Amino acid sequence: MTIRKELFSAGGVPAVRWTPADDATDRPLILIGHGGGHHKTHPAVLHRAHHFVRSGFAAVSVDVPNHGDRPTDDHLQRMATEIRTRADSGEDLAPLLAAFHARVAEQTVGEWQAVLDHLEYGPVGYWGVSLGCGLGVPFVAAEPRVRAAVLGLGGASAPASAAAAARITVPIEFLIQWDDERIPRAQSVALFDAFGSVDKTLHANPGRHGDRLPEHELDSAVRFFTRHLTPP
Amino acid sequence: MTIRKELFSAGGVPAVRWTPADDATDRPLILIGHGGGHHKTHPAVLHRAHHFVRSGFAAVSVDVPNHGDRPTDDHLQRMATEIRTRADSGEDLAPLLAAFHARVAEQTVGEWQAVLDHLEYGPVGYWGVSLGCGLGVPFVAAEPRVRAAVLGLGGASAPASAAAAARITVPIEFLIQWDDERIPRAQSVALFDAFGSVDKTLHANPGRHGDRLPEHELDSAVRFFTRHLTPP
Repeated sequence: MTIRKELFSAGGVPAVRWTPADDATDRPLILIGHGGGHHKTHPAVLHRAHHFVRSGFAAVSVDVPNHGDRPTDDHLQRMATEIRTRADSGEDLAPLLAAFHARVAEQTVGEWQAVLDHLEYGPVGYWGVSLGCGLGVPFVAAEPRVRAAVLGLGGASAPASAAAAARITVPIEFLIQWDDERIPRAQSVALFDAFGSVDKTLHANPGRHGDRLPEHELDSAVRFFTRHLTPP
Repeated sequence: MTIRKELFSAGGVPAVRWTPADDATDRPLILIGHGGGHHKTHPAVLHRAHHFVRSGFAAVSVDVPNHGDRPTDDHLQRMATEIRTRADSGEDLAPLLAAFHARVAEQTVGEWQAVLDHLEYGPVGYWGVSLGCGLGVPFVAAEPRVRAAVLGLGGASAPASAAAAARITVPIEFLIQWDDERIPRAQSVALFDAFGSVDKTLHANPGRHGDRLPEHELDSAVRFFTRHLTPP
């Protein structure tokens, strides 16, 4: 399958969509949130996007503020630097990560909604871990077009994230890296417990925060989105 | 697909095999361990067996001592009654369950190996939760023909079960019922942690011990066994 990549912008925010080159039919869309320090066409995003397109979906990814082709935001840049410094020294990251996610989500929830408006899709799925989870939780809570979400590598470190998770009622597949050195396991479990969804499932795999997720989790995400976004 | 059901016995132990009626080719075999108080053709076993056969496998199930078509074993019967009584009164079941599983596994490990000898299959998968996990852990640890196992709804309540789990190195998909009132979550997690396997994944879903597992877990088991038992 030849995959078409289209760069576009919505409300001035740079984004990219992947679809089959020879298939203009209306497919369910998966919005992929990229990780911290990454961007909309990072290899990890591209790998998932291509897999989703080969599995019957369209995929879209958006540069987060202070990432990719976005201008530098001095405040976010300072916060990101401090997060890296604290991570390297083994300090508790939770409060700073929560503040960072909350600050960025103030922009991204509306930006990602504008991307969906621009593309005019029907049912949408969301896939995001780490930064993609921190920003995904408030987005999925706010956006009714999102009908199912794969989230993970994130925790309920702040009351605000637990409260947003509680407003989510769509099916959730939640990933934990079992040896995550950044997100305490108890905080990950607390976020899983906080989701208001009746249909939620937790997948834990051995590995640290930055380790590659097992490939079978991508297959599982496809099966999950197919169940919830594709008419039987 | 028409499914053929063959009752047979191996070493005097009653068993059943399911295969496609019109396909005599050598398929990978899934041995399904039944739950406590159930038997080899309990609806929950039958549902999984048919799904496995429709997905490219053969399936086999064996009556556990004091279950199904096996004669009554007074000692096991008394233990089972005491487990039910304690469960109803909300007492800690772990020590008694561990003793029960150890006592039954003394017989079933050899019996199930005799079933595999009788059937002369190549790669074998094992699927079992609850009693099927308590008996499955020592079986999978002892039997090199088992190349992958789905286990769950069981805990590392006794040093013997953690030690057997540590000897297991084949891929494991491990299920936890997140609201299990019989197996404390920490004991389930301890069993998952005890497996010696590099490739292991934990799936947790909301629900109590006896609640029906989500159907997507059966689909996941098929994908798991296909990855590990079927040549690419």
